[in-house]
Amino acid sequence: MITIGIVGGGQLARMLVLAGLPLGLRFVVLDPAADACGAAGAEHLCSPFDDRAALDQLAQRCDVVTYEFENIPAEAMAHLAAQVPVYPKPQALAISRDRLTEKNLFRELGIDLPAYFAVDSKASLEAVVALTGLPAVLKTRTLGYDGKGQFVLRTAADVDTAWQQLGKVPLILEGFVPFDREISVVAVRSRDGEVRTWPISENVHQAGILRQARSMPEDAFAQQAGVYARRILQRLDYVGVMALELFCVGDRLLVNEMAPRVHNSGHWTIEGAATSQFENHIRAVAGWPLGSTAAQDHAAMVNFIGAAPTSEAVLALTDVHLHDYGKAPRAGRKIGHATVHSVDRLRFESQLAQLKSLADAVAC
Amino acid sequence: MITIGIVGGGQLARMLVLAGLPLGLRFVVLDPAADACGAAGAEHLCSPFDDRAALDQLAQRCDVVTYEFENIPAEAMAHLAAQVPVYPKPQALAISRDRLTEKNLFRELGIDLPAYFAVDSKASLEAVVALTGLPAVLKTRTLGYDGKGQFVLRTAADVDTAWQQLGKVPLILEGFVPFDREISVVAVRSRDGEVRTWPISENVHQAGILRQARSMPEDAFAQQAGVYARRILQRLDYVGVMALELFCVGDRLLVNEMAPRVHNSGHWTIEGAATSQFENHIRAVAGWPLGSTAAQDHAAMVNFIGAAPTSEAVLALTDVHLHDYGKAPRAGRKIGHATVHSVDRLRFESQLAQLKSLADAVAC
Repeated sequence: MITIGIVGGGQLARMLVLAGLPLGLRFVVLDPAADACGAAGAEHLCSPFDDRAALDQLAQRCDVVTYEFENIPAEAMAHLAAQVPVYPKPQALAISRDRLTEKNLFRELGIDLPAYFAVDSKASLEAVVALTGLPAVLKTRTLGYDGKGQFVLRTAADVDTAWQQLGKVPLILEGFVPFDREISVVAVRSRDGEVRTWPISENVHQAGILRQARSMPEDAFAQQAGVYARRILQRLDYVGVMALELFCVGDRLLVNEMAPRVHNSGHWTIEGAATSQFENHIRAVAGWPLGSTAAQDHAAMVNFIGAAPTSEAVLALTDVHLHDYGKAPRAGRKIGHATVHSVDRLRFESQLAQLKSLADAVAC
Repeated sequence: MITIGIVGGGQLARMLVLAGLPLGLRFVVLDPAADACGAAGAEHLCSPFDDRAALDQLAQRCDVVTYEFENIPAEAMAHLAAQVPVYPKPQALAISRDRLTEKNLFRELGIDLPAYFAVDSKASLEAVVALTGLPAVLKTRTLGYDGKGQFVLRTAADVDTAWQQLGKVPLILEGFVPFDREISVVAVRSRDGEVRTWPISENVHQAGILRQARSMPEDAFAQQAGVYARRILQRLDYVGVMALELFCVGDRLLVNEMAPRVHNSGHWTIEGAATSQFENHIRAVAGWPLGSTAAQDHAAMVNFIGAAPTSEAVLALTDVHLHDYGKAPRAGRKIGHATVHSVDRLRFESQLAQLKSLADAVAC
């Protein structure tokens, strides 16, 4: 019986546990929140992420440890990794937690990406704005997610405001990308180096938060996105699921960022693919063969942000599956999602539109 | 937040909980075994089924209660049902726990079934054997499952042995049915009376234990089986999933027995149907709309009896999903299953054969 530790107890942990229980695995989740929704079906270590005693307990009880988010203190990760195998290896976490090192890696791997510049003073901000021109996006190098820690500079006057707001920490300025579409590729690599990718997702964000993702099995950018993902996975000797977010601009494909974990844009794989991102992450981490990532139907996912439609309304849609995370509703919080999948295109589009409209009516 | 109680904590409870957690439901499982595999993801009341205090606790903590097996003491059920809605209604349990009342109901509903006779003495056994002829099957009226509590009478000398073995409890003698195939239909009825059925399953038993079930979407008997199931569900004002096992004999369809619960022959619906029997049982019990029971692919399920192949071997098969119940291996015990499903017939048959051979190699 293999026991898997998960650092972080949000909905990603929840879906990892639900995918792993049928495989006969046990789980221990480390999360400081008493009501962590990811603890369902797992043993819950309710402690801060930097609590050495809790980390020691996690290491002792588990055969292998994984994580569900990027912002784990580096020291905590090192403390764990000294005692138990951690997948993906902590170097992936270290690189992805800092936008600058992440982008440097992409450049080094020959991956196309928007112009970017490190900023460590107001003077350097003004200097690089002169290079990129406006608009441009100022971002904190670390701890940003769901659009937080970002400022879009549109006029010269914004430079001062942005610096006031974000200037206390190391920053990066990125050229503004007038993208046609945002896509992501979710990929998995096994312990023995096999890589599989799911069909890419086309993503729609609002206010920096993902609202909808749909699978695009025939997308023209799929192959290039897969090539980029493989390059990163191989360089990092990565084990588990990784997501790569990209911009499509004309015929160019520019990488935005990577997430060293299962990813919101891959939630449609739960019902829409032969094997979900969650099951394949668990299989990879456990050292087991990967499952098929084939996805023939039309599939999509709609997030419930801040509030969710009634379960009755969602479940009344024929091709829809509900994923309620059991979290208290709060503005801007991801509290659930639903997937739609169908072999029939028209029926799929109709159900997706109805689902989207239910979600939009209550989102806050 | 709806909390559902489940009486019984085996693998059926486990799969009900795993299907219900994504719907945002909470579960309390009552089972006397400390290591009840169905308690994963649920609160566990570890008490005997007839413990009044535990039943009171279950009733207090839950909005609705269901059950995963038939052999719950009738008094316990009545005690619960006086305090909290119980679905399926206890009358279904009362009828199905006694083969005689069950068969009387079938007959009353105009459902074709093998000849049967109540037996309450050795003299009455001899008398009815004279009517049915041999072979015939002597069964206990209550508490039989997986082939237990049965004796196939082949010669006149068997009458005495069978009576010695089973004669302490009320019995039923059934005519021996030289069936061509065993099938089952799994059906679900919602609180407002809607009925849906999955494609029927063709089942293979060995030594009374189900070994394999495969979906037969185009089967000639499907419609008749569905009609029978509907009749029973409606008569019992049933809420939840019910399975009906039947024999195909030439062009006759004879009902064998009903199970007032999710059923082993419907496990292939987890990956093989739009909505699984587990999710639809939970939806029905929670008072929510039923999900689609459509199943277009080829789908099958193979049980792991007594021992399971290694997870690596099972997961190496492309179209296979593993369901390890986390139970200790023991001869004759169902400890897991795997499902196969594929749109491609040849690929499906090949994977199923490989899976079956893995399972057979270790079964005990």
